[in-house]
Amino acid sequence: MSEQSRDERAIVGPGQPIDPLPSVTADIREHLAKITHNAVEVTPLERLTERIARGDRLTVKLGCDPSRPDLHLGHAVVLRKVRELQDLGHNVVFIVGDFTATIGDPTGKSKTRPALTIEETRENTKTYVDQAVKILDSDPEKLTIKFNSEWLQSLSFQDVIQLAGKTTVARMLERDDFKKRYKAEQPIALHEFLYPLAQGYDSVAVDADIEIGGTDQTFNLMVGRQLQRDSGKEPQIVLTMPLLPGLDGKEKMSKSLGNYIGISESPERMFEKAMKIPDAILPDYIRLLSDEPDRYDFQMSPYETHLAFAREITTTLHSVEQMEAAEARYREVASKQVPDHMETIVIPANELPIGICELAHRVDFATSRSDARKLIQGRGLRIDGEFVADPREELGLDAPIVLQRGKSRFIRVESSQ
Amino acid sequence: MSEQSRDERAIVGPGQPIDPLPSVTADIREHLAKITHNAVEVTPLERLTERIARGDRLTVKLGCDPSRPDLHLGHAVVLRKVRELQDLGHNVVFIVGDFTATIGDPTGKSKTRPALTIEETRENTKTYVDQAVKILDSDPEKLTIKFNSEWLQSLSFQDVIQLAGKTTVARMLERDDFKKRYKAEQPIALHEFLYPLAQGYDSVAVDADIEIGGTDQTFNLMVGRQLQRDSGKEPQIVLTMPLLPGLDGKEKMSKSLGNYIGISESPERMFEKAMKIPDAILPDYIRLLSDEPDRYDFQMSPYETHLAFAREITTTLHSVEQMEAAEARYREVASKQVPDHMETIVIPANELPIGICELAHRVDFATSRSDARKLIQGRGLRIDGEFVADPREELGLDAPIVLQRGKSRFIRVESSQ
Repeated sequence: MSEQSRDERAIVGPGQPIDPLPSVTADIREHLAKITHNAVEVTPLERLTERIARGDRLTVKLGCDPSRPDLHLGHAVVLRKVRELQDLGHNVVFIVGDFTATIGDPTGKSKTRPALTIEETRENTKTYVDQAVKILDSDPEKLTIKFNSEWLQSLSFQDVIQLAGKTTVARMLERDDFKKRYKAEQPIALHEFLYPLAQGYDSVAVDADIEIGGTDQTFNLMVGRQLQRDSGKEPQIVLTMPLLPGLDGKEKMSKSLGNYIGISESPERMFEKAMKIPDAILPDYIRLLSDEPDRYDFQMSPYETHLAFAREITTTLHSVEQMEAAEARYREVASKQVPDHMETIVIPANELPIGICELAHRVDFATSRSDARKLIQGRGLRIDGEFVADPREELGLDAPIVLQRGKSRFIRVESSQ
Repeated sequence: MSEQSRDERAIVGPGQPIDPLPSVTADIREHLAKITHNAVEVTPLERLTERIARGDRLTVKLGCDPSRPDLHLGHAVVLRKVRELQDLGHNVVFIVGDFTATIGDPTGKSKTRPALTIEETRENTKTYVDQAVKILDSDPEKLTIKFNSEWLQSLSFQDVIQLAGKTTVARMLERDDFKKRYKAEQPIALHEFLYPLAQGYDSVAVDADIEIGGTDQTFNLMVGRQLQRDSGKEPQIVLTMPLLPGLDGKEKMSKSLGNYIGISESPERMFEKAMKIPDAILPDYIRLLSDEPDRYDFQMSPYETHLAFAREITTTLHSVEQMEAAEARYREVASKQVPDHMETIVIPANELPIGICELAHRVDFATSRSDARKLIQGRGLRIDGEFVADPREELGLDAPIVLQRGKSRFIRVESSQ
């Protein structure tokens, strides 16, 4: 928010473990290295170092939007960092943003933000928490769940004016999404400027020591810092994590873009999607989501690397047994998989029906009809993924079929009708 | 606010009485002509016509900022219009903006907007009303005073979000002062965007039928219209009046620019300031502030016109007796008035003290010392506005003096010491 707080930011480059204060002990240094590992920014790093050196148990704030209860691996990046802090002895306050969720979009324009009822909010929160505890430690000693309506509902107009007075219009318009929309002349309803304040006020209400979020949340996290300072409290430390690229390899992972792997997706779907992560970004997935990134030997082929990562993520979010079943299913499907593009041969209608051996010979899958018969007997020929059992089968080709020889040769066959 | 409401605006040019609906009776037409006389805009004019034709008594909203209790003739333009509506049988709700006044400036940066205590607000309101009823009819049947904390204090954060959702950031930035400040990169604290909503909500709370303000208030008045519509109420009619130019002839009249004539200024000061209104804008003052603008004959000299206006405005805001005393005083002072710039003559220190006759001769006010003596005897010579009584007076010139011959010749005299 303020220039001061911007200057305080420490840039922690990915993969560059930092050594903030050489004077601290090796234990403290290791503790700090774990917290800052993979982080993009820690603001202010000095304060984090001081508090860890003092042995403080930090209150870690983690916000959740119950109107979007479907978590994906992008969320997992942040959740994993929070889990690391739990494992290091810190306490998490999981804040459910039910206050704004029950308001929805007062403009009535956004179909993606309907107002939730209290019941829907509770239901979505349960869904959210069920997914989050696949990664977080659910020990009540280390995880407290709070609903922000508890403190936001009682704020008066006067309180809101006081909060709003702490920031400026220009500062709000610096936030990436607002800036883009303002420049593109897309409407920003005025209440949208109030939501970051509500979220920031959560930090005041729970006395957060540190808040974790994706880099796209930096602005909101800094608002929390500012509002705590204005309330005479110690401003929270802000730790941001990289955004995970989606399966398209371009945009950040998001449900609305469809480029995601959901935390609660079935083992089969998760395994299959993991196998489709573009080669170029797989190292990001490993770095940000693997418990043992060093296990990945970059001498491995892309296929082997994918396989190893698909196994790890499916095992983590499900179980070894489910992962193994998913892998078996994946291999079976893969073996039946049909390429998107293949050659098409058209059989003149007056030649129909046509014998399967004649057809196999015609498309050059066999050198002769008797060669075709042997192929069928050796389970080497499939129609639409199913083995051909009877070499005497006649085909009418009322609909196109895919003829497959072995694992890798496909041809599409249709009638001229 | 909305495009729709912008299109609804009817432009009523100054001095162009409009005839909105030829089908209404002469009485109604006269009633409408009085209301719209001098107005810049009436939105929507059709609705005003309908309601007047129906014989409705309108609730006229008039807002007041108790943190700025010094009214001037610029306010009088709006107050006179409101008074006209009272005289036509409509009721005024005078809304004291105590809610925002007691909040002040939460950024703490503005020295001009300190938070008022409840007592200061009441005190300032009394001052404000005392001045306003010099123009308004104070009959309680026609004037109700309300404090907007009555309804704004009980709004919750949720209510504020609902209100804020009714407008957009871009729309707020269209308001003239915000636009200028944003372009000039001057900070706009976010709560400033909430004040127009608070003010607009006043219209919802009192069920205003029509709100009157200067053209610089158009935006805020339209917000009221928008919020009433969103609340399922009939949107108020908005009537704006021209801004009165200040005594500098350039900027609008305002206390902070010092170019104002205060409603509660002494008769002497008011008369004197009125005589200084620049010639070019005096017709605006007459048009907007005179009860009988036709009495002003533009064959009159500028001096006579000033005199007539100074008499009228001083009589209106004080009394005939006070006006007459003020005029007498003005004439007396005028006769003694010293020009701002005049020639200066320096008398060498070794010639001091110097006789008054010698000095008058030296500065060419007399052809000789005996001529100077006659001048003094004929009350033709003054020092610092006072007649010289004794031709034998010797001057030490410890401080500079102004020597005056007759009414119009002045010279500054000082010693070389």
